[in-house]
Amino acid sequence: MSLPRIAIDAMGGDEGVRVMVDGAAEARRHHDRFKFLLVGDEARIKAALETHPNMRGASEILHCEDVVGGDEKPTQALRRAKTTSMGLAVNAVKKGDAGAAVSGGNTGALMAMSKLALRTMPGIDRPALAALLPTLGDNDVIMLDLGANTDCDARNLVQFAIMGAAYSRIVTGREAPRVRLLNIGTEDIKGTDQLQEAAAQLKAATGLAMQFDGFVEADKINRGDVDVVVSDGFSGNIALKAIEGAARFVTDLLKDAFRSSFRSKVGFLISRPATELLKHHLDPNNHNGAVFLGLNGVVVKSHGSATAGGVANAVKVAARLLEEDLTQRIASDMAALHARGIERTGAGE
Amino acid sequence: MSLPRIAIDAMGGDEGVRVMVDGAAEARRHHDRFKFLLVGDEARIKAALETHPNMRGASEILHCEDVVGGDEKPTQALRRAKTTSMGLAVNAVKKGDAGAAVSGGNTGALMAMSKLALRTMPGIDRPALAALLPTLGDNDVIMLDLGANTDCDARNLVQFAIMGAAYSRIVTGREAPRVRLLNIGTEDIKGTDQLQEAAAQLKAATGLAMQFDGFVEADKINRGDVDVVVSDGFSGNIALKAIEGAARFVTDLLKDAFRSSFRSKVGFLISRPATELLKHHLDPNNHNGAVFLGLNGVVVKSHGSATAGGVANAVKVAARLLEEDLTQRIASDMAALHARGIERTGAGE
Repeated sequence: MSLPRIAIDAMGGDEGVRVMVDGAAEARRHHDRFKFLLVGDEARIKAALETHPNMRGASEILHCEDVVGGDEKPTQALRRAKTTSMGLAVNAVKKGDAGAAVSGGNTGALMAMSKLALRTMPGIDRPALAALLPTLGDNDVIMLDLGANTDCDARNLVQFAIMGAAYSRIVTGREAPRVRLLNIGTEDIKGTDQLQEAAAQLKAATGLAMQFDGFVEADKINRGDVDVVVSDGFSGNIALKAIEGAARFVTDLLKDAFRSSFRSKVGFLISRPATELLKHHLDPNNHNGAVFLGLNGVVVKSHGSATAGGVANAVKVAARLLEEDLTQRIASDMAALHARGIERTGAGE
Repeated sequence: MSLPRIAIDAMGGDEGVRVMVDGAAEARRHHDRFKFLLVGDEARIKAALETHPNMRGASEILHCEDVVGGDEKPTQALRRAKTTSMGLAVNAVKKGDAGAAVSGGNTGALMAMSKLALRTMPGIDRPALAALLPTLGDNDVIMLDLGANTDCDARNLVQFAIMGAAYSRIVTGREAPRVRLLNIGTEDIKGTDQLQEAAAQLKAATGLAMQFDGFVEADKINRGDVDVVVSDGFSGNIALKAIEGAARFVTDLLKDAFRSSFRSKVGFLISRPATELLKHHLDPNNHNGAVFLGLNGVVVKSHGSATAGGVANAVKVAARLLEEDLTQRIASDMAALHARGIERTGAGE
């Protein structure tokens, strides 16, 4: 099966053109069927391509010079959707020139442009940003929303659960991924009205391709006993960043501790394979590639400071979602839900 | 100066009477001026006291048999405020029989009972739960609210900032602790209306005993460059638990990594002083003792699964807040705020 090509916003991200092109080339070394539309300054892209003979014949350049700034407001960026590398990469998906887009640029602008160009899928009110996080179990856990929607109602949360479960079926291979809503306790009475209502709707639903297990607290996200953690974008962003920060905090403390005495330094050198394993497991580049779920097309957000290896992972995420046709999976799950009419319940019972 | 005695809810917590009495005794070994009112089953308390000669003459027993259940709803627990060990410990503070209360029981019930018995301080609409977290810097960071209030408006957040700063002055010795609001970005436009309004009010305020530095993201809580992190109780609880969970996740991974080969095991044994240092730094018992700020009296929540050492730390927190007269500090800061009339601004500008 030939894979639709992937549009790369070569100008987004903190590191510029080279890291994006290096990342695409690295992904292609593992999967030689990948093809690319590289969007950005032609001269710089050509220069970056020189070191990658494996990209010859597999990539086309779409020249543009304009770039969305990291601090730019989404509304401002939207006005330059037709001239910026980000806007043109997303637009290539809309026009069918590419199957998916990958960008390391401004998340808010990417969200706004993707929503405007690709529109939300039938039955989905709002797209959500989803990412994979490592766990103690065999599979990564999917968290969503991570910041696309500050406020969410029960209906949004139910839709996020369905989209997350569809993504998790691809990642875990489970037919009924274990889904939970992020809350500050697991008892029914805990949390906001929206959470309680969403839980009631998901509990009442039958035949959904998920196992809904109620609430989960933020200290249980990485234990490996939940596949999808659903939240509003504010709480999800807080939880994601708190986890990232705490992981860095502990590894920083560990470094300090290992430096605290000669004996510790020797122990560190001997146990280096162990600490390297830890470092590998926690490196965000190995989990790079957040996805906007719920759009008519695949858009993947690469971390602004990702390495070439990180960009390669984001590209692989995009390719996998194309191959497994995530958009179609969500559409059919949503259709099944509509058939049972659960969606029509409002905010109250 | 003689310290008012501390009421101990000897029945609360997962571990029962012994750990609470052992903890009080341990605290007293370091500070022999501490005196206690031990509230709970007299026979069991007496049995636990037998191994602690240093508690003789320093503790009185207030007998009761009723105990608040860990899963009990606060409204239900409130009806037994006059008969349970938790209710009687809090009531002792109200009556002036004790200067502070320490409980390891049900957080929601403790909050409800404390609020009803002690009432909020003049100018404070709602109390908040505050805890100390470790940082890479010299001082702990104070986070509040950690779950007492699911929804908060700008006015609540401003009050939490003032209460947290008063607490931080005691902990850090700084005259103007660095205060930030927890948000999903640091730009002015990020987050909810409540956060933006609270930030505007704190920025406009002059002469407050704090340095307000705007927003902080959840990955920067433990870096040591902020002294007080203010949030609504939902986000704060999510952030706190995400940090706890991630720290445990990383140390679990590290354990697995050290077990992965003979070489790693040897390295682990040699570097044990380093890993012990890390363990000590991350042990929640060393940061035990969350405080309900904003009440007419000091109430400290000890973790339900705290060790005797953890309970001793919670007792020391209570003693320190009594010695430094936190309640009076908050009252005078609130009075200063009212004098400038900042408080009177509503939700909109």
